[in-house]
Amino acid sequence: MNPPRVVLPLRVVLVDPRNPLNIGAAARAMSNFGFSDMRLVNPYRVAFREAKSAVKSQHVLAAAREYASVADAIADCALVVGTTSRGPRALEHPLRRVEQGGRLIVKRLASAPVALLFGSEKFGLSNDAMSHCHWLMRIPTREEHGSMNLGQAVAVCLYELARKPAQTLAPPPSKPLARAEDLERITMLLEEVLARCGYVHAPVEASTQLKLRRLVRRMQLNAHDATVWLGMLRQMRWKLFDQPGT
Amino acid sequence: MNPPRVVLPLRVVLVDPRNPLNIGAAARAMSNFGFSDMRLVNPYRVAFREAKSAVKSQHVLAAAREYASVADAIADCALVVGTTSRGPRALEHPLRRVEQGGRLIVKRLASAPVALLFGSEKFGLSNDAMSHCHWLMRIPTREEHGSMNLGQAVAVCLYELARKPAQTLAPPPSKPLARAEDLERITMLLEEVLARCGYVHAPVEASTQLKLRRLVRRMQLNAHDATVWLGMLRQMRWKLFDQPGT
Repeated sequence: MNPPRVVLPLRVVLVDPRNPLNIGAAARAMSNFGFSDMRLVNPYRVAFREAKSAVKSQHVLAAAREYASVADAIADCALVVGTTSRGPRALEHPLRRVEQGGRLIVKRLASAPVALLFGSEKFGLSNDAMSHCHWLMRIPTREEHGSMNLGQAVAVCLYELARKPAQTLAPPPSKPLARAEDLERITMLLEEVLARCGYVHAPVEASTQLKLRRLVRRMQLNAHDATVWLGMLRQMRWKLFDQPGT
Repeated sequence: MNPPRVVLPLRVVLVDPRNPLNIGAAARAMSNFGFSDMRLVNPYRVAFREAKSAVKSQHVLAAAREYASVADAIADCALVVGTTSRGPRALEHPLRRVEQGGRLIVKRLASAPVALLFGSEKFGLSNDAMSHCHWLMRIPTREEHGSMNLGQAVAVCLYELARKPAQTLAPPPSKPLARAEDLERITMLLEEVLARCGYVHAPVEASTQLKLRRLVRRMQLNAHDATVWLGMLRQMRWKLFDQPGT
């Protein structure tokens, strides 16, 4: 389903993370979406240690590096983007929704490293951390409950970077459709069975046949399912016509 | 940033969930993205009870209902969609990427209830649960590590439903840009200061002025920042020219 990906030079920077489960969840989402460069600024030591002992995403956490300051963590990046759940009124920075921001990040990643900053679980990014950002990005949550869980916010942002526009995707591969002659056989068998059961009455027989034919076509049967239907109807016919005692 | 939302008739159905943190995380994501109808099929009782005691998203969890079977949980739905991390080869169902599937769900939600099923943390949806689905949906994760954390998978799917195409979004509101006369004042002051510092040499003065003028225009200053720059440069000039002893 997914061709091998080029690893994009994205740095996922967690600033002041406190909960080992969130650090682990962020690493798992990175592994899910094919990113590997995790950077932690001033993490709570116990949390980082506990997260490292989690089973999955070992390769991301094992390679994660710790930094004393945001400036150090982002030093090699050409674009620095912060995430926030606050609205534009509370901010000094340009604010983009993740749908737009994600596209800009993907464009930039083609040629240069980009840092994506996530703040602490309780307070988000500080004004100091934000001052290192070129702009901020917001996931379109409800105003009444805007703040997302850290691991979930990382997952949504990375999904947006891995996302492809729906129009560029091929429709799901479908099985070969049933041939018309099989559909007609099904129609005939169904009619025969129904007639034997007293469903079809002589004066309306022709119109019933048309109705059944359209009904069978609307089923959009694939070749395999048509064979199954033929088998079932033949079995019914055998029971209704040939079986002694029916 | 977000206008009040119409509550869409989406049922988020967790089948056999085992971990209270995941149930809580799913509820939080639902609250973040404005969905409220959570249904649990055969949850581990302790997990459900513990999740209910979590602080956030109380309204979603308090209203969550428990069902004995998938059939009961989805009985009122016109479309039933399952989620999976498996590839198309392993499946009997049509499989869509979430980018495409999400659009179909949003369309259907306009007129009828839709169920979105998530399987247990360890095993995903069983074949029995999948047999109730019209089709399946997959988040585009790496093949080598496809399985997402349950709470993160719910967040990504709901984000996709709440997502708007980037082209329909307005660019972020920007502050009014600086007027040309202020930019020219900045250019002149900068030149004056630089000349006083010995940066500008007489023979190349004209070309330097052009370079500075372009440099200042590329700063894309807004009106407020232009005022700040004027203040800083005036202060430098005062120091360099008027201050006794410089």
